[in-house]
Amino acid sequence: MASLRDIGVSALLNIISAFVFLLAFALLRIQPINDRVYFPKWYLVGARTSPTHTANLVAKFVNLNYKTYLTFLNWMPQALRMKEPEIIDHAGLDSAAFLRIYVLGIKIFGPAAIVAFLVLIPVNVTGGLLFFLSKDLVISDIDKLSISNVQPKSPKFFAHISMMYLFTFWTCYMLYKEYDVVALMRLNFLASKSRRAEQFTVLVRNVPHVPDRSISDTVDFFFKKNHSNQYLCHESVYNANKFARAVRKRQKLQNRLDYNHLKFERRPHKRPTKKTGFLGLWGKEVDSIEYYQQQIKELDEKLMMERQRIFKDPKCIMPAAFVSFNSRWGAAVCAQTQQSKNPILWLTEWAPEPRDIYWKNLAIPFVSLSIRRLVISLAVFALVFFYIIPIAFVQSLANLDGLEKVVPFLRPVIELKFIKSFLQGFLPGLALKIFLWLLPGLLMTMSKLEGHVAFSVLERRTAGKYYFFMLVNVFLGSIVTGTAFEQLDSFLHQSPTQIPRTIGVSIPMKATFFITYIMVDGWAGMAGEILRLKPLIMFHIKNMLIVKTERDRQKAMNPKSIDFPEAIPSLQLYFLMGAVYAVVTPILLPFILIFFAFAYFVYRHQVINVYHQRYESAAAFWPHVHTRILASLLISQILLLGLLSTKKAVNSTPLLVVLPVLTITFHKYCKNRFEPAFRKYPLEEAVEKDTQDEASEPEIDMKSYLSEAYLHPVLRSFEEIELVEVKVDNKRAHVPSQLAIEPVSGSHSTEPASGSHSNRASPNVQHLEVVVEQHEIVYKKQHETSINVGAMHQ
Amino acid sequence: MASLRDIGVSALLNIISAFVFLLAFALLRIQPINDRVYFPKWYLVGARTSPTHTANLVAKFVNLNYKTYLTFLNWMPQALRMKEPEIIDHAGLDSAAFLRIYVLGIKIFGPAAIVAFLVLIPVNVTGGLLFFLSKDLVISDIDKLSISNVQPKSPKFFAHISMMYLFTFWTCYMLYKEYDVVALMRLNFLASKSRRAEQFTVLVRNVPHVPDRSISDTVDFFFKKNHSNQYLCHESVYNANKFARAVRKRQKLQNRLDYNHLKFERRPHKRPTKKTGFLGLWGKEVDSIEYYQQQIKELDEKLMMERQRIFKDPKCIMPAAFVSFNSRWGAAVCAQTQQSKNPILWLTEWAPEPRDIYWKNLAIPFVSLSIRRLVISLAVFALVFFYIIPIAFVQSLANLDGLEKVVPFLRPVIELKFIKSFLQGFLPGLALKIFLWLLPGLLMTMSKLEGHVAFSVLERRTAGKYYFFMLVNVFLGSIVTGTAFEQLDSFLHQSPTQIPRTIGVSIPMKATFFITYIMVDGWAGMAGEILRLKPLIMFHIKNMLIVKTERDRQKAMNPKSIDFPEAIPSLQLYFLMGAVYAVVTPILLPFILIFFAFAYFVYRHQVINVYHQRYESAAAFWPHVHTRILASLLISQILLLGLLSTKKAVNSTPLLVVLPVLTITFHKYCKNRFEPAFRKYPLEEAVEKDTQDEASEPEIDMKSYLSEAYLHPVLRSFEEIELVEVKVDNKRAHVPSQLAIEPVSGSHSTEPASGSHSNRASPNVQHLEVVVEQHEIVYKKQHETSINVGAMHQ
Repeated sequence: MASLRDIGVSALLNIISAFVFLLAFALLRIQPINDRVYFPKWYLVGARTSPTHTANLVAKFVNLNYKTYLTFLNWMPQALRMKEPEIIDHAGLDSAAFLRIYVLGIKIFGPAAIVAFLVLIPVNVTGGLLFFLSKDLVISDIDKLSISNVQPKSPKFFAHISMMYLFTFWTCYMLYKEYDVVALMRLNFLASKSRRAEQFTVLVRNVPHVPDRSISDTVDFFFKKNHSNQYLCHESVYNANKFARAVRKRQKLQNRLDYNHLKFERRPHKRPTKKTGFLGLWGKEVDSIEYYQQQIKELDEKLMMERQRIFKDPKCIMPAAFVSFNSRWGAAVCAQTQQSKNPILWLTEWAPEPRDIYWKNLAIPFVSLSIRRLVISLAVFALVFFYIIPIAFVQSLANLDGLEKVVPFLRPVIELKFIKSFLQGFLPGLALKIFLWLLPGLLMTMSKLEGHVAFSVLERRTAGKYYFFMLVNVFLGSIVTGTAFEQLDSFLHQSPTQIPRTIGVSIPMKATFFITYIMVDGWAGMAGEILRLKPLIMFHIKNMLIVKTERDRQKAMNPKSIDFPEAIPSLQLYFLMGAVYAVVTPILLPFILIFFAFAYFVYRHQVINVYHQRYESAAAFWPHVHTRILASLLISQILLLGLLSTKKAVNSTPLLVVLPVLTITFHKYCKNRFEPAFRKYPLEEAVEKDTQDEASEPEIDMKSYLSEAYLHPVLRSFEEIELVEVKVDNKRAHVPSQLAIEPVSGSHSTEPASGSHSNRASPNVQHLEVVVEQHEIVYKKQHETSINVGAMHQ
Repeated sequence: MASLRDIGVSALLNIISAFVFLLAFALLRIQPINDRVYFPKWYLVGARTSPTHTANLVAKFVNLNYKTYLTFLNWMPQALRMKEPEIIDHAGLDSAAFLRIYVLGIKIFGPAAIVAFLVLIPVNVTGGLLFFLSKDLVISDIDKLSISNVQPKSPKFFAHISMMYLFTFWTCYMLYKEYDVVALMRLNFLASKSRRAEQFTVLVRNVPHVPDRSISDTVDFFFKKNHSNQYLCHESVYNANKFARAVRKRQKLQNRLDYNHLKFERRPHKRPTKKTGFLGLWGKEVDSIEYYQQQIKELDEKLMMERQRIFKDPKCIMPAAFVSFNSRWGAAVCAQTQQSKNPILWLTEWAPEPRDIYWKNLAIPFVSLSIRRLVISLAVFALVFFYIIPIAFVQSLANLDGLEKVVPFLRPVIELKFIKSFLQGFLPGLALKIFLWLLPGLLMTMSKLEGHVAFSVLERRTAGKYYFFMLVNVFLGSIVTGTAFEQLDSFLHQSPTQIPRTIGVSIPMKATFFITYIMVDGWAGMAGEILRLKPLIMFHIKNMLIVKTERDRQKAMNPKSIDFPEAIPSLQLYFLMGAVYAVVTPILLPFILIFFAFAYFVYRHQVINVYHQRYESAAAFWPHVHTRILASLLISQILLLGLLSTKKAVNSTPLLVVLPVLTITFHKYCKNRFEPAFRKYPLEEAVEKDTQDEASEPEIDMKSYLSEAYLHPVLRSFEEIELVEVKVDNKRAHVPSQLAIEPVSGSHSTEPASGSHSNRASPNVQHLEVVVEQHEIVYKKQHETSINVGAMHQ
């Protein structure tokens, strides 16, 4: 058992490390050389470019203005300055809703902490059970503030039960209010969006094969018949994976060509050459520019052939289609209704945003989907329950007595007081954290195998799996390992009423572990998050080694999205800890509150300055957030029940049994009340928007507007490249780029950027349409992207 | 433990009683006086009327044709003669699908029984564990044929496991095929139906109150805006409960008036008189005919006032409406989509058939519904788990040793061998049966409180509750009471893996109990079902005492619908017993097979000749049937797992764990594959029907066709009564009725009849429309009913 002093040491350590991180961040962020690491969002939005010509070469890399060093903590007030509606404009509703989770945490646990400190802690302290026990028993000071200190059968437990009631009602109230607000925000956000392809489009899967008729004709026939007044057109889904590989190869060649062009420009007296053999190490020496031009020309021919083949070969056309309608009403109707007599054919759902689509999964047939889901859920179950073995092993190592037995020669070192505290406070949390690092990628792969067709769904499913993992392994695993969780088997052999009791009993004992966990994972972790050490190092390494053109620099900067599949479940673990310990060991609450507040600051800063969302789901993850917080509440109620039953407060049981029932009812009510707002698109809304559109732009040609919106991005990308004239030095930022050109190529890695145009405010779109009109429709989308960016810089 | 001899006695007893019932039925059914009890369906269809004039008065009551007595068992082949499509025409798809469940039972358990007898029983018998045990241990001969006879750790258990695999695959295969067939039947049935109001109508609930606008205007405005091309008209829902009471009173008065008219006709020299006081025992003597005419006149005025008030008073208009569309497509779209931004307003669902609606529940607001469901589910839970106490008590009485202790003076009687066998064989089953008689009414009331708006849904919900009850109390309760089920509490304190073991162990021991249960409940019960003793007695009592007019006779005959809420769950209990014992004690299977076959005969006869369905849900209950059979399969797998783990066949566990996982996957697949066919209406289908209609009757006036279809039946009923001229003697069947008039009044009790017209084959409807055209629309529906019946008799 860690003593209060251990906690103090650990807290000090973590505070220091957090402070060091913050200081490092404050210093690094004001160096111009790191500008693209800490403010990439502004580059992408177009409000910031590489520093313009200055006389001093050093000033381009190092901040020489000493005044800025004095105000190095001013990012905190800056992060708060932007209002929520601005954040929604700037970074999208997903990010804004994500920030609200932290505020929700403060709103729930703030008052809970105050009440607990005013009422529960005095009640616990005066109980004094543990004061009578001999000092030999390992009991930490923290336990004296917890429910463990109350004597069995004491009527004082009614204080705890009342607190649980209060906490439940308060949490439900806050959750209800928040759900209401977010649902409204979502509706308003959707309503405020200008015309978007996905509002008119439905994804149809499992199109049946009709003999002697192409998929395209089948789709056309079916929708002309069954949605005669609404059906407009459709876009087939092509299997373009092979083509995508070729496009990626061409991009690489183009990049080398650009590099050689620049090389030649700078040293016009010598044409660059290269050897044709492996890695350019041997073989015939040729003129690089000519060589690459020749290669690209050859590849272009191949690509053209392959492209034509894709459009013609029926084998490349998948039994799925994006069907567009002439009104939002028509699309809403089609997405929500059953089309065919055979319920597994003609499955319709809202089309995700074009940039949100995970193309690879579009062709999975229905039967295969069922099997995939079964296999993956079994795999997740196995993963969750067998992953526990290594964790338990590491934690038993972190138990110092165990460690001394395994490596006896370390004994003298471990016995040093400071190191002992460090190990006890830091190690278990760290071990867990390392394990958790490996996980999200694996879970994402599993979700992809499950066959979801949108990145947003993939991320939500991954988050769900991750949360399940955290719940079982981090939370329950940590609580029970030390006491009774020798094997999963022993757990299975307990009675259903015994399980909460077993866990409940060990909860107060594990408070110190979770406090250190919060400090390591929450406090220091958040400071690490804002420091962006990994992206910082990666950016500079890439800049030195790989970056040859401006396009490369853009790639190297790639700020990525908020890591929802990892961030949200981790965050929800704090809700779980808070809910469980609010009544049992309220001393934990301030640690959680500090985490929520600090994380709120950090993520607000990151959302404003760093992250660039790959897609916009309009807070579609909120129902999951809500449900999981409620699940935490339920778990806390059941565990308190178990704990109290060991305290022989049996007559309190009926009082506590009521709470889970009420919580479940509340959940059901909220599900009915709010969830449709996140899953369906009300016809009322659709009609309103349709009417507005009709009034504002009565004669827009919807068909040309929608056509090609859902073409696989690679199929339109490579011809685009010619249009982008690149004149960039490969030495970093020597010649400032006038055009911050986005990489429009459609390979997997660049999708976040290629879709970014649609995230912007609407006025630009109209402006663009004037500019673009003379271009061919095929290229329209890409032009919007690049020209729009250009326009904003002029 | 009952010995094989006890079973034999019990079987003999039950066979005799079943035979007596059948004989009684065969004799009673050919008596003309009972014709309306055994063939009411034909009266309602119109194919049969009261016997026409015969010279012999006796022949009207007693069958004097001795030849018919010789062929008294000919109802069995008769029952089989009608083909399935004819049954669908004659009695509806619900009845036909219901019959299919019995056939399904035979299909599943027939081959299973053969395999089990050829393989498992030899394996069990040669095991011979029990032969070695001393005779003192109470082990019945049946156990020697069961799995109990196999020695622990024997490799023979792999025979049982293989059998379980075989049985699972076979059952799933049959279920899949059956689901497929029923889904297709449903689609064809819906497609073959002619134009029906419910195909164009959607029930809208939770219409919001807009200030200064009536509900009707709000509905009109909303649907004109959001379904502008499809919306046709709507019918408000009125709160007419008070009015309905007055209508019932008027009916009673009218009945008395008719009676007195008839009385006066027969004895024209003396006008009938009555006293105005209580029950006509004292007070002023008045002329009966004048008195009732006066009373009716007064009541009519009141009714007219009340009727006008209902239509005008906004308080009587509920926030719900039946919204009709000009096409099936429009209605299908509206029923399947979300209408409003606020997901708890404007809730749409398919309107049930007019005769299927449970009017009282139409006005329950959304919030109240959530609370009602919570409260009722808690109540059901309590009912299920506390009902067990009296059952356990009765069964402990039925345990003879217990009985002898309670009533020692009965000992000599009980010790008589025959009586002992009787008690042991008959009593436990009977006690259960008596308890179960009380239940369905209670569960139906609970379902009504839950707030469902259609009788079909109410019955399905009741069936669900009833099945849950049977599962826990009849099945699990019977198995465990004798061994470990002292209290629910002790059950809660077992580990999750211990529970199937506890139950599994006692399963083979309870085989004899279930065999007697099958014989009492199944065999004798079915014979009782066909005898219709209660309706027979009630009909004759009513005929003697109450029946004054032909309308009364019609009422007395009321054949009711098949009692789905009771029949389906009872039936599914047999599937459960069959699945559980197929591998453990296969000797049970023939008993179940005999039940299925016999019940099939009986219900086929009843469906053809007796029952008259109150509504037609087009086999909407099938998904429940399917799911519950699968649940039985799952239970049987888990119990076998528990049983085998006590037999120390541990290495078989992994083999058996696979089965539940596969079963659940199969369930999910079927749910996706078939359930939409039962819950949604595919647009493809809707468009097809719409196109057909357009081609066949292009200029039908949909608005007048649909208006009033969904008016509360009482609101149009009482004016109707004048139209029906009744000239019937109150002495039973003296004057044969030329017109088999249906009671058209709309009070609760007569709803089954008032809707019966729509169950008829379509050609009549067109015929009717010609006849009816000159009448006012308000009366149209009622005319259809009465005139239709009249027309068919002429």
